[in-house]
Amino acid sequence: MLVVAAVGGNALLQRGQPLTAEAQRANVKIAALALAEIVRAGHQLIVTHGNGPQVGLLALQGAAYKPDEAYPLDVLGAETEGMIGYLIEQELENALGHDHAVATLLTQVIVDPKDAAFGAPTKFVGPVYTQQEAETRAQAAGWAIAQDGQYWRRVVASPKPVEIPDLRVVRLLLDQGVTVICAGGGGIPVVRRADGSMIGVEAVIDKDAASALLAADIGADALLLLTDVEAVFSGFGTDTAKAMQWLSPEEGRALQMPAGSMGPKIEAACAFADQGGVASIGRLADALKLLNGAAGTRISAAPKS
Amino acid sequence: MLVVAAVGGNALLQRGQPLTAEAQRANVKIAALALAEIVRAGHQLIVTHGNGPQVGLLALQGAAYKPDEAYPLDVLGAETEGMIGYLIEQELENALGHDHAVATLLTQVIVDPKDAAFGAPTKFVGPVYTQQEAETRAQAAGWAIAQDGQYWRRVVASPKPVEIPDLRVVRLLLDQGVTVICAGGGGIPVVRRADGSMIGVEAVIDKDAASALLAADIGADALLLLTDVEAVFSGFGTDTAKAMQWLSPEEGRALQMPAGSMGPKIEAACAFADQGGVASIGRLADALKLLNGAAGTRISAAPKS
Repeated sequence: MLVVAAVGGNALLQRGQPLTAEAQRANVKIAALALAEIVRAGHQLIVTHGNGPQVGLLALQGAAYKPDEAYPLDVLGAETEGMIGYLIEQELENALGHDHAVATLLTQVIVDPKDAAFGAPTKFVGPVYTQQEAETRAQAAGWAIAQDGQYWRRVVASPKPVEIPDLRVVRLLLDQGVTVICAGGGGIPVVRRADGSMIGVEAVIDKDAASALLAADIGADALLLLTDVEAVFSGFGTDTAKAMQWLSPEEGRALQMPAGSMGPKIEAACAFADQGGVASIGRLADALKLLNGAAGTRISAAPKS
Repeated sequence: MLVVAAVGGNALLQRGQPLTAEAQRANVKIAALALAEIVRAGHQLIVTHGNGPQVGLLALQGAAYKPDEAYPLDVLGAETEGMIGYLIEQELENALGHDHAVATLLTQVIVDPKDAAFGAPTKFVGPVYTQQEAETRAQAAGWAIAQDGQYWRRVVASPKPVEIPDLRVVRLLLDQGVTVICAGGGGIPVVRRADGSMIGVEAVIDKDAASALLAADIGADALLLLTDVEAVFSGFGTDTAKAMQWLSPEEGRALQMPAGSMGPKIEAACAFADQGGVASIGRLADALKLLNGAAGTRISAAPKS
């Protein structure tokens, strides 16, 4: 099978952990062991990953050094594709042995310049703050901010991914047995100008949405949305909470999910299921089990074995 | 012909220019137009690039934010492969039209952990300082520093590149007509441990040395070392300075070059010429002319047309 595995930011870095290279490498190593099982089971694998904490950190670092020369989010996104992609590639190669080729591709993803998201930023990036801290920083740096659970964070525009031109290159590599890491952080957001040329924009694309588009457009059999929770729960947060094994896209869309990371995952899973694919949501450590239907929540048009 | 074009840091950013995204994009655009001519003339192209100013900037940004959590040079190098690679890829695609595939690959380059360079840092990274400024910063951050012309800069270990495992992936892409950007900043420096696994190290590999290794190992016909000077000059800096059209590797090695960027270029060119290739040194804007022997200095075992 051709599998797209989307590794969530929460699976790469727990909240409260310092964003040091060491902490990230340690988490990436655990992720790589889980992902390697999919390749060893004989499947073709594309790995995508989040970059919320990292892109926020790079923005803070740039602002701490010379606020006037801080880089736009397309460039920072490209930096995180380099940083996180490198760590995942190295640990995946170490897990698989260096006879198996793994390639990390920088990936531009086209968005619509008229996307309403540019006027209404919603995507969390960077660390959490108290409301007062967040408001002070927002004032100083011109950020938009929003509440995230009990904290506040910077929010940026998150337009819908429309097209991934680099898929032809991803396909070439897969056909030659290469495991591909791409579309990190949802891809580098770009728009197509009237003359056909591309230019980066100030935005961050949702990684799950980009992964679903990638999976559908490349004809993947399965999309794994890997995070730090075991499954989608009915009655989440109540005494009768129950992990759901299978959902149709209609059932998925009808769920009232708490704000946060599960909403975009269910939306991405439903979008892929609409195209005839099988999407699964669950723990990173269960990646192969999710693929085999032995863990997590599966979203597909019909229950499959 | 299969051509490796190494774009120098000086060609991407003139000294004194601010390291803003805008300034880099403007320079990259000019570079892309020159590189596109090589592809349009029917050649296969691999682009490599420097990262001296950028890796230094990212190190400063990290230190300005949280000195204790600053990232090691392998991770920073990976970030610059993302940042610069993205800008080059986008502008090269814009120059060639988006029907032509361009791919940017993260590239690890293996070095020898026993390389003497780890004990004697010589590679300049980051901005220039007065001697006093440099000494103050060196004290605070634990840097090694050295004189660069009239200024002082941070220096880091620059071990010799030994092997580029990702070349098999580069070859796959070239065979399918893809233009490849790789080994940015000389590649991400890694060492092979006793168990065969890889791990990054605190170093920056010379981009010209990595490009020469890449060109030789992949069987390139030509290596272009692109910078902001027209050619190699005899009697450089004197009234009788004269651009040299052709040098044998023996003549190249016998030149007494002023310290700075020309030394590593001549060394890289001679190493590639030793393997039977044709290396050229000259202006980025003259890239296609260099390839055709109509500009710059050519270094090869025998003069060729």
